Amino acid sequence: MQLNDRQDYDLAYMLKFENVAWYENGKVKILDRRIYPIRVEHVICKTYKDVAKSIKDMVTQSEGPYTAAAMGMVLAFYEAENLNNDELYYFMEKAAYELSHARPTTSEQMSGIVNGSLEVLKKCLDNNLERKKILDKLFEYAYNYVNNNYKKYSIIGRNLAKIIPDNGSIMTQCFAGTVVGTMLRECKKMNKNIKIYCAETRPYYQGARLTASVAKDMGFDVTVISDNMPAYTIKTKKIDLFTSASDVITMDGYIVNKVGTFQIALAAKYFNIPYYVTGTPDEKHKTIDSVTIEKRDPKLVLESLGQKITMDGVNGYYPAFDITPPDLCTGVVTDKGIFSPYNLKEYN
Amino acid sequence: MQLNDRQDYDLAYMLKFENVAWYENGKVKILDRRIYPIRVEHVICKTYKDVAKSIKDMVTQSEGPYTAAAMGMVLAFYEAENLNNDELYYFMEKAAYELSHARPTTSEQMSGIVNGSLEVLKKCLDNNLERKKILDKLFEYAYNYVNNNYKKYSIIGRNLAKIIPDNGSIMTQCFAGTVVGTMLRECKKMNKNIKIYCAETRPYYQGARLTASVAKDMGFDVTVISDNMPAYTIKTKKIDLFTSASDVITMDGYIVNKVGTFQIALAAKYFNIPYYVTGTPDEKHKTIDSVTIEKRDPKLVLESLGQKITMDGVNGYYPAFDITPPDLCTGVVTDKGIFSPYNLKEYN
Repeated sequence: MQLNDRQDYDLAYMLKFENVAWYENGKVKILDRRIYPIRVEHVICKTYKDVAKSIKDMVTQSEGPYTAAAMGMVLAFYEAENLNNDELYYFMEKAAYELSHARPTTSEQMSGIVNGSLEVLKKCLDNNLERKKILDKLFEYAYNYVNNNYKKYSIIGRNLAKIIPDNGSIMTQCFAGTVVGTMLRECKKMNKNIKIYCAETRPYYQGARLTASVAKDMGFDVTVISDNMPAYTIKTKKIDLFTSASDVITMDGYIVNKVGTFQIALAAKYFNIPYYVTGTPDEKHKTIDSVTIEKRDPKLVLESLGQKITMDGVNGYYPAFDITPPDLCTGVVTDKGIFSPYNLKEYN
Repeated sequence: MQLNDRQDYDLAYMLKFENVAWYENGKVKILDRRIYPIRVEHVICKTYKDVAKSIKDMVTQSEGPYTAAAMGMVLAFYEAENLNNDELYYFMEKAAYELSHARPTTSEQMSGIVNGSLEVLKKCLDNNLERKKILDKLFEYAYNYVNNNYKKYSIIGRNLAKIIPDNGSIMTQCFAGTVVGTMLRECKKMNKNIKIYCAETRPYYQGARLTASVAKDMGFDVTVISDNMPAYTIKTKKIDLFTSASDVITMDGYIVNKVGTFQIALAAKYFNIPYYVTGTPDEKHKTIDSVTIEKRDPKLVLESLGQKITMDGVNGYYPAFDITPPDLCTGVVTDKGIFSPYNLKEYN
């Protein structure tokens, strides 16, 4: 196997490839991000169907499902070892469909990854490679997929790290995925000593559970606050910069991200500190009008870690994301540099 | 006994006098607001020391401890039935001290209440009243104390209800105590149909547990949101008005209230909807500089309902209150009418 230099060096435990999604000896293991770090447990998948179920059940999230799908294709191939080539290809197409459609909203992007696996498979079969070699090639593909993504996140992380003042304090919202790790790794390389304040991000606490854990794991001074504290904390703790990831950045400069981002951006503006979003402007969304904000099960805001917090008959409202207008955003930090939200056409 | 007309009529279960703090047959019972409405349980106090411990342990909060202290004095008297007058008075002074000093920051205001009980006692002893009659007088005092407060809250509630548009939607923060109930009762009297959106108010969920339960109990359409959702909800649900109580309103127009108030007020300003605070300007605080914001145990923001939500070694930061400047406040709703935060001298 030819594996390029691992891009997860010096990152936190949960960002190590083996803990994102990893194929080895007929199994895919996935760190269970639903409960991490309260409990550190991996889901062990023995079939590609187990992997699809894990994606569906949100065992992993953010960029995790994409890697899991690619690793799931390796496992599917392992399961199919006794099938002839025709049966094998049919089985693998079925696996590709099930893995990519485990969650409806991301099936298009997911299809891109698993179709890549199918192409690798086809080429190998055309060249009559022995089965053991084909498995290696499929693993290589999955590995390179995640490794190349990490390389891209390293560039975004570096671009963000450059603008954080030394001895500065930053505030985060939710979990910005691998970029949190690469940004902190770059800060270390630059010998920047920084403090991180994480809004806990109800109802799932991704800020407290994931962002804070990654920062702590990597040796940083990290503080969790409840979601009602960002504005006051920006003032009292003299926060220098607010940053978040994005689910969508529209071409007209609006940021769709985990609900709460908007009101922290409002507070940042009030105190005249910058808000930098990480991500890539989305050509599919020319304007914010094309974005539909997903509403999740209202029951989820009426409980915490499965325990009810209010009276029966009280309603819940759970918009998963909110919208931050361009006038509240200082810059969009991408792999190609930092852009004004008013000038995103320049990205391409 | 001469008890004036009860002012808790048509209010929610948790605001009924019997559930705030109530003496009967040698016991004081207090609804446990720490767990309400997840579990509906009363703490039964058999000695005044039990009452003091309940206050200390925050079984009740907001205005609850004041009533509990006055009812605790009735219980202390019941406990002392076999003592002679001198011993009795000494015992009651001791009870007054312990009840009023159960929580350090409010001991001054609490002393006012229990000293009132001592005065009643002294007068009764001077007039050689029989013991049974004295107990009635002490109960009357406690009853009138809470009843008169409810009368005042009714006026504040009415002044607030008047400015809520019919078919309007309001947003609340934390639990504004009895005023939530009286405001809703007044809305009903005015035949105003309104919707209430409650920010859950981490880490103790007073918005979800108390405010939402009071509104639901009184038959209103009430919705809980997480603390990261107010700004977006003001926009999407077309909220007409934001209101909160206050821990301190300084004479120069700053509002000290449960942390989160400030950032909702910021969002209200951004969307050009009014923010009305209920309470009374505090002559003891001429300017905001005289207020020290209490920091509570950081551990409390690192957990939810006793369960940890982040990794060991992560810090917490828990400012109990925040400060909203006068330019974000539309008006201060008092028992004497509505005042501009820039003109609070007129209140007196």
